[in-house]
Amino acid sequence: MTTAEIITIGTEIVTGQIIDTNAPYIARILNEKGIQVLFQTSVGDNKELIKSAMKIAMERVGLIITTGGLGPTANDMTRKTVSDVFNVPLVSDKGSYTHIQKYLGSLHVNISDGHKKQSMIPEGAYVIRNDNGTATGFALRQSNSEIVCLPGVPREMQPMLNKYLEIYNSQHKSEEGCRLTRSLHTFGISEPAIDARLKGYAGREEQIKTMTLVHDGIVTVNITATVKTRESAIKLLDRIERDIRKQLGLAVFGMGDETLESAVAMLLKKCNKTIAVAESCTGGLVSDKFTNIPGISEYFLEGIVAYSNKAKVDILGVSDELIQKHGAVSEHVAIAMAEGVKGRSSADIGVGITGIAGPTGATKDKPVGLVYIVVIVDGNIEAKKCRFRGSRIDVKNYSANTALNMVRLKLMQML
Amino acid sequence: MTTAEIITIGTEIVTGQIIDTNAPYIARILNEKGIQVLFQTSVGDNKELIKSAMKIAMERVGLIITTGGLGPTANDMTRKTVSDVFNVPLVSDKGSYTHIQKYLGSLHVNISDGHKKQSMIPEGAYVIRNDNGTATGFALRQSNSEIVCLPGVPREMQPMLNKYLEIYNSQHKSEEGCRLTRSLHTFGISEPAIDARLKGYAGREEQIKTMTLVHDGIVTVNITATVKTRESAIKLLDRIERDIRKQLGLAVFGMGDETLESAVAMLLKKCNKTIAVAESCTGGLVSDKFTNIPGISEYFLEGIVAYSNKAKVDILGVSDELIQKHGAVSEHVAIAMAEGVKGRSSADIGVGITGIAGPTGATKDKPVGLVYIVVIVDGNIEAKKCRFRGSRIDVKNYSANTALNMVRLKLMQML
Repeated sequence: MTTAEIITIGTEIVTGQIIDTNAPYIARILNEKGIQVLFQTSVGDNKELIKSAMKIAMERVGLIITTGGLGPTANDMTRKTVSDVFNVPLVSDKGSYTHIQKYLGSLHVNISDGHKKQSMIPEGAYVIRNDNGTATGFALRQSNSEIVCLPGVPREMQPMLNKYLEIYNSQHKSEEGCRLTRSLHTFGISEPAIDARLKGYAGREEQIKTMTLVHDGIVTVNITATVKTRESAIKLLDRIERDIRKQLGLAVFGMGDETLESAVAMLLKKCNKTIAVAESCTGGLVSDKFTNIPGISEYFLEGIVAYSNKAKVDILGVSDELIQKHGAVSEHVAIAMAEGVKGRSSADIGVGITGIAGPTGATKDKPVGLVYIVVIVDGNIEAKKCRFRGSRIDVKNYSANTALNMVRLKLMQML
Repeated sequence: MTTAEIITIGTEIVTGQIIDTNAPYIARILNEKGIQVLFQTSVGDNKELIKSAMKIAMERVGLIITTGGLGPTANDMTRKTVSDVFNVPLVSDKGSYTHIQKYLGSLHVNISDGHKKQSMIPEGAYVIRNDNGTATGFALRQSNSEIVCLPGVPREMQPMLNKYLEIYNSQHKSEEGCRLTRSLHTFGISEPAIDARLKGYAGREEQIKTMTLVHDGIVTVNITATVKTRESAIKLLDRIERDIRKQLGLAVFGMGDETLESAVAMLLKKCNKTIAVAESCTGGLVSDKFTNIPGISEYFLEGIVAYSNKAKVDILGVSDELIQKHGAVSEHVAIAMAEGVKGRSSADIGVGITGIAGPTGATKDKPVGLVYIVVIVDGNIEAKKCRFRGSRIDVKNYSANTALNMVRLKLMQML
């Protein structure tokens, strides 16, 4: 089985000024392809340190993927360092040079010396063209090591990684040993409860490992199969996935890149239903999540962030007496909010959320984290009283995901 | 100057199943204390690999900070590995044992063998008590190396890192050489323009380095001072900060952890103004950002996500003819949206945003990324036509930040 190390190059990464998302992205993709990532390393824009990191990686893995350091400035030294470490001169790649010229031309920019440098690759390396920028990528193989250098901008790096993996796949077809991972996302069953259901089962299958991860109330089950070939891994994962889906039932909402909001969006489309949302404590987060989905405008009609009581009364038609009697954070008000937004937008589904996100605003009877969530589909009202823990942002996230999941389950019943 | 490496331990990290935020957090804190982080390494829950990572780190830095692998399960092997690498036996720390018992008692949980293991530390190590969990941390010094092991849960790790740094500070008072970084966040001047203004200046000060980073339109200037003592670093940074602020003027909106929305929230409070927001293409993102700020409910009255034309007409009072004549994505409609939400909420400030986030929805005249943003303060209308590039989510983020910045500048004029 191929082992790999990801080296992310950049002073902004190693000093913590940005959170690197390239390494986890690449690790996930490699893992899915059956390549085992053993290490991730970050190092600043310092030639000697990059060199030492590359040398250590060459000793301990078969495949090194680097990101960053391919820009036009003096701080970009990945090319030169690879040339030194692998003892291969840099040569200008004509095709890349022409591409950079064209790319800059389309932006009405003249090619500079820095940009010219970006067409240089180690002699004998395989060029990985960058369709979204000027940083040429490359893959260089030498005896047992392969190094693949990609730019740090995710939008440029991601398609280039795919291009490399196509080459990789064509070269590694016959390789023995494959590890594949599949992720199933669930909502509504606690992590210990899921662990308990998977436990006895995992012991029976030696080639299978399961791992759970929790994030904003979503429990993800990662199933990893380690077997001889890619085909048998897929077959095994298919069987295990069916089995786990049977055990976890409706709690499973998606796989891989799918999110609760994308699952709901797909169901709205399938059921041809429209939705409108009235939010208080989540402050627009549910609307924001929905509107991250391309094409949602056909199904998502409107969102009201009724933060003040006045807004609840004026826009959503919640009665003043109801707020006086039960308080703005109450099931009655959540229902009135959902009814209000559904009525005024003529949507098929209305959602109402009211609660105390904290850290202030708690009373004796109503602690921080108390949230009421209501979903109304046609005439049918479902209300949930929740008590979430954590920071203000945690409470917002848990509340939004719980609301999305309630909508999802309602729509599932209509299929 | 002390050099450091951060090793994050966990299969979920190295396989990319979670995005690790501990390493950048620790790097930032160490950097602020003048400790230079040279490498970040991630490695899975595999004793031999962890061992090799620790040994490599011992060769290349003076201080190693690890996170993860201190839990109660068989997968948690940081303690045992440190014991092996440093050749020191593990001993039970009485104080930690009592603490774990008490902590679990408060949760009505009995102490298990796994939990007992969590009180074990390498003989001679300094205990770092965990007030938020059962994983005892520790710092072990041996000749030129110091290793500090902390749990992976950020809520537990962060206060423990602070405890360690108090010890570190008391031991390193007289040390020569200190590097401190300060971050200034700006909006409204492009990165190349900022670079150009800082360029000539940076050459004059050898002890100062500046670096710019862009994120969702926000350009952050990191100023690093490398001098003899902490006091002189602070003095130098103060002077440079004043100078840069003078050059960049109103574009500077905050430092360190401050965000555009927190800057606006502070100004709303200072000026005692209320705000309401009508969003189309940003889909609730501006409201969501505002409501992440504790206590904002006094100033943020309501947000309307008027995704459909019907919502723009019904809730915001935008006229049907206006939409027919100019289109929903137009300055006229953005103004009417801002006026509508301001009027209906009686807020001092009204914001209207309409645009095409993409990837669909473009017409011949109106490309993806075209966004109109309007801010009305009392009777004063400011309108901006923007053309953003990137994904749907990029367009949402740029639009939201541009709107927040327009509000900020308006409020600055009122101070």
